[in-house]
Amino acid sequence: MRREFPTVAVVGATGAVGREALSILASRGWAASRVGAFASARSARLRAPFGLGSVPVHEFGPRSCDGFDIALFCASGEVAKRFGPPAAASGAIVVDNSAAFRMDPHTALVVPEVHGDDPSGWAHRSPARGVIANPNCSTVMLVTALEPIRRAFGVREIVVATYQAVSGAGQAAIEELRSQSRAALDGAARPARVFPVPCAFNVFPHESDVDLSTGLCGEERKMVAETRRIWDAPDLPVHATCMRVPVERAHSQAIVVELERPAKIDAVEGILGAAPGVRFFPRVGGTQPTPLLASGEDEVLVGRARLDCEGGRRLRLWVCCDQLRKGAALNALQVALGAWRNRGAIEANRPVAS
Amino acid sequence: MRREFPTVAVVGATGAVGREALSILASRGWAASRVGAFASARSARLRAPFGLGSVPVHEFGPRSCDGFDIALFCASGEVAKRFGPPAAASGAIVVDNSAAFRMDPHTALVVPEVHGDDPSGWAHRSPARGVIANPNCSTVMLVTALEPIRRAFGVREIVVATYQAVSGAGQAAIEELRSQSRAALDGAARPARVFPVPCAFNVFPHESDVDLSTGLCGEERKMVAETRRIWDAPDLPVHATCMRVPVERAHSQAIVVELERPAKIDAVEGILGAAPGVRFFPRVGGTQPTPLLASGEDEVLVGRARLDCEGGRRLRLWVCCDQLRKGAALNALQVALGAWRNRGAIEANRPVAS
Repeated sequence: MRREFPTVAVVGATGAVGREALSILASRGWAASRVGAFASARSARLRAPFGLGSVPVHEFGPRSCDGFDIALFCASGEVAKRFGPPAAASGAIVVDNSAAFRMDPHTALVVPEVHGDDPSGWAHRSPARGVIANPNCSTVMLVTALEPIRRAFGVREIVVATYQAVSGAGQAAIEELRSQSRAALDGAARPARVFPVPCAFNVFPHESDVDLSTGLCGEERKMVAETRRIWDAPDLPVHATCMRVPVERAHSQAIVVELERPAKIDAVEGILGAAPGVRFFPRVGGTQPTPLLASGEDEVLVGRARLDCEGGRRLRLWVCCDQLRKGAALNALQVALGAWRNRGAIEANRPVAS
Repeated sequence: MRREFPTVAVVGATGAVGREALSILASRGWAASRVGAFASARSARLRAPFGLGSVPVHEFGPRSCDGFDIALFCASGEVAKRFGPPAAASGAIVVDNSAAFRMDPHTALVVPEVHGDDPSGWAHRSPARGVIANPNCSTVMLVTALEPIRRAFGVREIVVATYQAVSGAGQAAIEELRSQSRAALDGAARPARVFPVPCAFNVFPHESDVDLSTGLCGEERKMVAETRRIWDAPDLPVHATCMRVPVERAHSQAIVVELERPAKIDAVEGILGAAPGVRFFPRVGGTQPTPLLASGEDEVLVGRARLDCEGGRRLRLWVCCDQLRKGAALNALQVALGAWRNRGAIEANRPVAS
């Protein structure tokens, strides 16, 4: 008998993305009996919040995913590299949130709003019983917002400036923002630990390490490479500037795209208003997306659509997205559920045993 | 005998920009006897900070600027329109910080790093005994950072996303940021008064009123129109997205320029490192500009220079600037002092009495 709900193992259940995955599962009526929460020895033997109650957190080991239909890896790239492929080989649908497999040509990098819920369209890129990769949060929100625009008008070039929440750097970063903010308000010193510079009432580069030949930081390189891969557009110019702002949760982006075909603003607003995964804020109405509005929401909030008056080829958008939900846990779960519901398409791509 | 220091009237001396003008004058050895501080009846009869001491604030009236060499208008556009031209006609060099005269074809809009300290280059645009206009803060920092690039490589198009401090909206906005931040940290409500949405731990549009035909807010329209006027480039495409971030003081900008001639990154870094009014942060070294670093500083902080690998025509920069200093009071004072030291050039353009 075909079950309505798959069983799900969450690997890295005590981290920010893992906790969000459990929260989404609980809010959609998942029973705790169908969810397994796993973490490293340090965090195991705790309980993780699950809806109004909690679930036990087990220490993760090589056989933890055995018997689960889906395994969401919300841990480090090292954990994903070591344990993801065996979990997939033993039958689980594995979606990994780390960067470990994203640029692997034998791994699909999936955003359902681009590739469809049904894996038929992308399964050929990820061999059956291989890992499926979830893109970086900043890339997910960018391509989800731009996909309907790309389909309607084509995209020739992207310029994006990010306003990223500190929570992308984990729970300790949120604590640092709070304690530094309080210290600054009290006129006290604000020592920096998680970030190399003060984060309270400040704006600073997403990473201080940059590639010396290009000057790009890691987040900027990811946005370029992953966007090109997701859209299968290896030469698309993407110019990203990635900065952090003193916001707890939800990233924002100021995006300018050069369109292949000129657009009219009413058509742009109509298309974005009907786009899947997007909540559009028209220019008439006053309210526009903010990271506070986006926090805890599933959709990518898109607003402030503006076209240049000269030719209608330069479209500007303002986009906010809860990077822990659509940017990470939610997108991974959408991908995993689509793959589970259409297991046939995945299995059809199973490599012949050698 | 030619005096070394002119006498200066500061109109609007109790506002954010006026206070900054007094602070700059005091820090440069101006004596209080050479400075007159004026404000509306509501704020007059107070004393304004001046170096380690203070100066009396007089109620502003139609004859307040009489006898002063320089009058810095740091008040509303209405005050500037009504009292600026008479003050100029009576002999003072008047520099206005409001938007009232910026787009007037008979008023020079001046940034010394672009036009030179000597008014010979721009005096023909502002008739003698007319008002000189100071650009909007976001425009000043943009053109100061880009002027050396424009001279070396040409600028064909600008895309800019701003991260603007709340202090641009006045002292009440700083208080709102502080009180809301404290309330949010305490888990309390955070009512919005100055801004239409919460400013603490949030990012939101610079203005909620937009031009419905273009979708642009006022700050975005200013950046486009003033940049074109300052550079005498009426068709230059400038695509601005202006947002506020929870920062007390100093604006930031992520800028992407398309160059007319391809550049190499070492040449760009060399040029920015030698540019007037700019403090450049090379990609090697780690430290990069932040609004906290820029606060209270005279220079425009420029860093994160990146060129696209494809053609070297897309230059990205990260720029931070204290918008009350170089963005407003300091630029106005530079302009006024340059005009005073070269009064001959101004007077040579005196219109013939009709």
